[in-house]
Amino acid sequence: MPSALILMADGTEEMEFTIPYDTFVRAGISCTSAFVPAPDTDGSEPHTVSPPFCKGSRGINIQPDTYLERRKCGPDHFDLLVIPGGAKGAETLSQSSVVQELVRDYLDHDKFVGMICAGSLAALTSKLPKQRLTSHPSVRTQLEKNFDYSEDSVVISGKLVTSRGPGTAFPFAFTLVELLCGTAKREEVRSPMAFPLSTPF
Amino acid sequence: MPSALILMADGTEEMEFTIPYDTFVRAGISCTSAFVPAPDTDGSEPHTVSPPFCKGSRGINIQPDTYLERRKCGPDHFDLLVIPGGAKGAETLSQSSVVQELVRDYLDHDKFVGMICAGSLAALTSKLPKQRLTSHPSVRTQLEKNFDYSEDSVVISGKLVTSRGPGTAFPFAFTLVELLCGTAKREEVRSPMAFPLSTPF
Repeated sequence: MPSALILMADGTEEMEFTIPYDTFVRAGISCTSAFVPAPDTDGSEPHTVSPPFCKGSRGINIQPDTYLERRKCGPDHFDLLVIPGGAKGAETLSQSSVVQELVRDYLDHDKFVGMICAGSLAALTSKLPKQRLTSHPSVRTQLEKNFDYSEDSVVISGKLVTSRGPGTAFPFAFTLVELLCGTAKREEVRSPMAFPLSTPF
Repeated sequence: MPSALILMADGTEEMEFTIPYDTFVRAGISCTSAFVPAPDTDGSEPHTVSPPFCKGSRGINIQPDTYLERRKCGPDHFDLLVIPGGAKGAETLSQSSVVQELVRDYLDHDKFVGMICAGSLAALTSKLPKQRLTSHPSVRTQLEKNFDYSEDSVVISGKLVTSRGPGTAFPFAFTLVELLCGTAKREEVRSPMAFPLSTPF
């Protein structure tokens, strides 16, 4: 069974967290959500107790499965690392040195990394080499100098998969399901969701 | 500021809860989520302490804002009542006599009621008069004798708005935003979500 680690922080965009997580579970991917505290809330040491609620960008409180811990969250434990958007959440995630290390580590070990919306800023802070990438339009100017910026809804560059916003969260999730589980699984998961007939993803 | 009450129960479909809630907040609609305990977990009296996590259909734990209480949740308090799907969650919600009363009460007071996916079963259990309606295909046979069943992605019948599943959760939410806040607000909320160009909603 493939596995995914989905990061979250206060300010994470709830739909960009929930749509991939839920879609992955439907595909039989084992999902774990890991909370990254904002840098001003405490030191850099991981907590040992259960994480608090994660307060999403639009006020929905979600309980993460665990805290992000370097030794339990590497590419030896999961097949895919996902970084959602939401301005404040993406700032916390992309500025975390542990997250930056994990991004490089996953790609170095040929594991998938997904970034959506402002989550794509983690490609910059992790100092990834110049490659095709997309993001929410609002952070485009921060990325286009260092990357080959695309306006495609989902961009696959090797094992790095990037996407644009809540409106592309479904095709982003389906693309990752297809990469991890194959085309048949993508359609098996998508079909019962009852999309309008002419939906292009 | 318009206001919405969004119900949830253990087994509620996370995307069908999160997409409307998040979209409504973006539209400036004041949102409250209210938890309905399963009938076997306790009596019918509302709790006075904070609700527990609500465990979604795909394992995401969401903290509801409050318990459902008849006297605080009527059409004098909110402009819109939303009932999401998820088989087990929709069963708890549609079988609740308080929910059934609220559905009738909102419609009697010319307030909106939204039902999506298996949430549309609440139209049946609330004994609403025969009218156009849609639902997730999996519960169609339970509904088509008592309603004029449609396969449209979103069906507006007076103040009752029904929809099909996670794949129609965005157009469902946008339709309710338009009904509560007008067409311009729908486009204002939709545009920054960055949907693929040919998306039909």
